[in-house]
Amino acid sequence: MAELFDTHVYARRLNEAARLCRVQGLAGLIIGTGPELAYLTGSWLSSHERLTALVVPAEGTPVLLVPGTDVGDIAHSAVPELDVEVRGWNDGQDTHGMAVGLLPPTGPVALGSSLTTLHVLAIQRHLDGRETVAAATTLKELFMRKDLAEVEELHKAALAIDRVHERVPKLLRAGRTEAQVAADLHALILKEHDAVDFVIVGSGPNGANPHHSHSGRVLETGDVVVVDVGGTRGPGYHSDSTRTYVVGGIDHADPEAVAAYEVLAQAHAAAVAQARPGVTAASVDAAAREVITRAGYGEYFIHRTGHGIGLSTHEEPYIMAGNGLVLEPGMCFSIEPGIYLPGKWGMRLEDIAVVSDNGIELLTRQQRDLR
Amino acid sequence: MAELFDTHVYARRLNEAARLCRVQGLAGLIIGTGPELAYLTGSWLSSHERLTALVVPAEGTPVLLVPGTDVGDIAHSAVPELDVEVRGWNDGQDTHGMAVGLLPPTGPVALGSSLTTLHVLAIQRHLDGRETVAAATTLKELFMRKDLAEVEELHKAALAIDRVHERVPKLLRAGRTEAQVAADLHALILKEHDAVDFVIVGSGPNGANPHHSHSGRVLETGDVVVVDVGGTRGPGYHSDSTRTYVVGGIDHADPEAVAAYEVLAQAHAAAVAQARPGVTAASVDAAAREVITRAGYGEYFIHRTGHGIGLSTHEEPYIMAGNGLVLEPGMCFSIEPGIYLPGKWGMRLEDIAVVSDNGIELLTRQQRDLR
Repeated sequence: MAELFDTHVYARRLNEAARLCRVQGLAGLIIGTGPELAYLTGSWLSSHERLTALVVPAEGTPVLLVPGTDVGDIAHSAVPELDVEVRGWNDGQDTHGMAVGLLPPTGPVALGSSLTTLHVLAIQRHLDGRETVAAATTLKELFMRKDLAEVEELHKAALAIDRVHERVPKLLRAGRTEAQVAADLHALILKEHDAVDFVIVGSGPNGANPHHSHSGRVLETGDVVVVDVGGTRGPGYHSDSTRTYVVGGIDHADPEAVAAYEVLAQAHAAAVAQARPGVTAASVDAAAREVITRAGYGEYFIHRTGHGIGLSTHEEPYIMAGNGLVLEPGMCFSIEPGIYLPGKWGMRLEDIAVVSDNGIELLTRQQRDLR
Repeated sequence: MAELFDTHVYARRLNEAARLCRVQGLAGLIIGTGPELAYLTGSWLSSHERLTALVVPAEGTPVLLVPGTDVGDIAHSAVPELDVEVRGWNDGQDTHGMAVGLLPPTGPVALGSSLTTLHVLAIQRHLDGRETVAAATTLKELFMRKDLAEVEELHKAALAIDRVHERVPKLLRAGRTEAQVAADLHALILKEHDAVDFVIVGSGPNGANPHHSHSGRVLETGDVVVVDVGGTRGPGYHSDSTRTYVVGGIDHADPEAVAAYEVLAQAHAAAVAQARPGVTAASVDAAAREVITRAGYGEYFIHRTGHGIGLSTHEEPYIMAGNGLVLEPGMCFSIEPGIYLPGKWGMRLEDIAVVSDNGIELLTRQQRDLR
């Protein structure tokens, strides 16, 4: 069960959300389950084809619409302590109409990120031509700038995943499969977190697929192995960290890999040096990419440099080309350049960073060498 | 890794999907990840903020748009064998515009069920006022009428969950917690399936919350316990079955619970007797509800009688009031009446049924007594 912040944290967030609606001229928000609901109420109610939605009008009391079958789960949230009305509903009722009916009759309506097609279209039908916008955009400022309590939670998560990486070298022995290593990592993550988010063990050529999870491939001495792991803890904040290892030690590695890793570490350092309040997310991506491109590996760095992190694994700010978003203190994101040589190996170095008043601080601190 | 049907199964389904678009005057489909994508291509690619979408135009070759980072995962699907073009894309490209651009320039566009708000709104922006409809509606006929191979997979899943229930009585001993029982069930489900879908152990008053999962509550002799479990296996088909037990045997149970269970079993039998080709889903719900209402428990049967099942846990046909859908051979759904006395206990009896030529066949067959 997720921990909760003090009630006043959620009360303030709900007030802020309503204020943003007023500032942006919106009728209000219809928020589904997931990180946005957890952010506003501490509730991790699960979602399904039945609508669970927090309706936040620009003025007035928010209402949590919840299937009658799930009302009991509200106890595990801040909702009972908040000025939020709970309305259970039963199968057969028109809940999308109920949600729309709780909002003022004019103005655009912002829809939560987790709502799926059937819910979005049903709400739009009831809005009868009124505009819908993304609540993620409405709430972006709120979500992106973490307060001290949130940074503290992300820091705890970062230290937890550091402790997992500390034990990886012992797990990577020739003769074991990626899946066996992943099972051990699963257990280690659970020991340090409340839940496992993902486990990637990409050995040899598998490492060249950045989203490979794990397989029955048997580790061999000299394999370059990408280990990218994450979990959630506390009120649901995520950890996420990648290190690259060589089975049997780096003396056994492909010399090109050892040299490329130097480039990767420099790219990582360049992004860290560039990130600070006032620069764009795109410029941080460019700083890392420039180093890798200059070394001739540009076409093998096939993803963005990072993503925001918080109650979601991936959120704003995205550290990527074209993102003119200006960094501000309190923003948290990953810095994770990678180089992927198809058929040979992949490598990635990922830390979680928080923007401070004059630079950034890395929350994950496990040693960054290829080892 | 999910098993696959023969390639021709997916080829036929893709052709059928395009044909339904033509019949319904649609430009085509934009399908996200999840059961719909798995149904059409065998792929269980995972979804995130990057768009992964199968674009099926009413005429012409379907295109799978997939983030460059995930292209490697397509090998675990029927896509390489199908007449489907794969287009990898990189961060920064306008993929929603790409998806819309692959469809004819007029006509409504059907959106897959798993797409979330940001994807739906971005696609709608590119459609510039053209209508969007739910692909779930377009494909409903296709999904609802299972072919023999699908029924066979659901049958295997049903037998797997029967074997789990067979071992439940031994797990329910006074002094153990719901969570301990749930951990054992987790392992048993995994033994018989590829993945765990959910585990509900609702003892005593917890059973009165139909969606309670499990807790630290300690079982006591005489507790009525709802055990509702499900997993997925083969190409991703689901099992789902509920039985109600009494810790220490029914001699220890509240006599009202024993009497109520008789009512519940009759309601289940009434729904089974009513279900056959040509009757409405609503009439099956009414048959079960009538028995329970007549016995005075109507207000304690707080959910619909059942839900369709297949590659999703819950799908059409929903067996509920107001659903005028006429049952046809090949439809698969749960029959699961329940009675929930707040503060005392809950009970539910759930089987998976397939509509046959002249009635229904229950795929789950574990004994149905309170025990």
